Amino acid sequence: MHFDHAGIATDDAAALAELYGDLFGLETVHEEVFDGMRVVFLECGDGDGYFELLEPITEGTISRYLEENGSGIHHLALATDDIEAGLETAREHGVSLIDEEPRSGAWGHTVAFLHPKDTGGILLELVEH
Amino acid sequence: MHFDHAGIATDDAAALAELYGDLFGLETVHEEVFDGMRVVFLECGDGDGYFELLEPITEGTISRYLEENGSGIHHLALATDDIEAGLETAREHGVSLIDEEPRSGAWGHTVAFLHPKDTGGILLELVEH
Repeated sequence: MHFDHAGIATDDAAALAELYGDLFGLETVHEEVFDGMRVVFLECGDGDGYFELLEPITEGTISRYLEENGSGIHHLALATDDIEAGLETAREHGVSLIDEEPRSGAWGHTVAFLHPKDTGGILLELVEH
Repeated sequence: MHFDHAGIATDDAAALAELYGDLFGLETVHEEVFDGMRVVFLECGDGDGYFELLEPITEGTISRYLEENGSGIHHLALATDDIEAGLETAREHGVSLIDEEPRSGAWGHTVAFLHPKDTGGILLELVEH
């Protein structure tokens, strides 16, 4: 598996995308409204590392995260070419799964989240492009 | 700039390294004691993306982070080949700097941190290898 992205919760994805563009030269490579969120991907690598900015439009996981924590790093995602195998390995190690089965994520990817209580407090996402 | 690593605060770097090795196949590529912390780098990419596990040995930033937040994602780091220019750009945009000048970081790298209050709540590190 390799690093895919860091998911960042923000109340203003456009402003943060502009700031990170100015400060670090990160380019916006994808934008969409997905699952009640404005989602902006900034490329920070050679097509192989992204910041995923997540701005809630409706009530949900990210709006609750922002209420509790403010803007911050929400999750880390690792890319795999076999997400089913990744979930099976997690199951074998007794890791609680937020998604028992892979589901559709932003940018047309297939994703599944592991529960942070069993992964050192880190919300980890597996993503298959 | 490109993605370099996610810094993860943990109270047991060895256990987390073993878990992430088992779950995701991430390999430990560097370990050291630095600045009162046990630091373990896990490679999650082709030499171009890491998880930096940070376990405090003495009182300091990471021990305080753990007391307040528990294990979690502490910072994100972007690699640059000109850290001075990166800091100057940040200054020009009015971003508060934790490190006004680059300093020595783990693994012999040169690092500087930007203050999260001006970067969308994210603690961002610039790193020059």
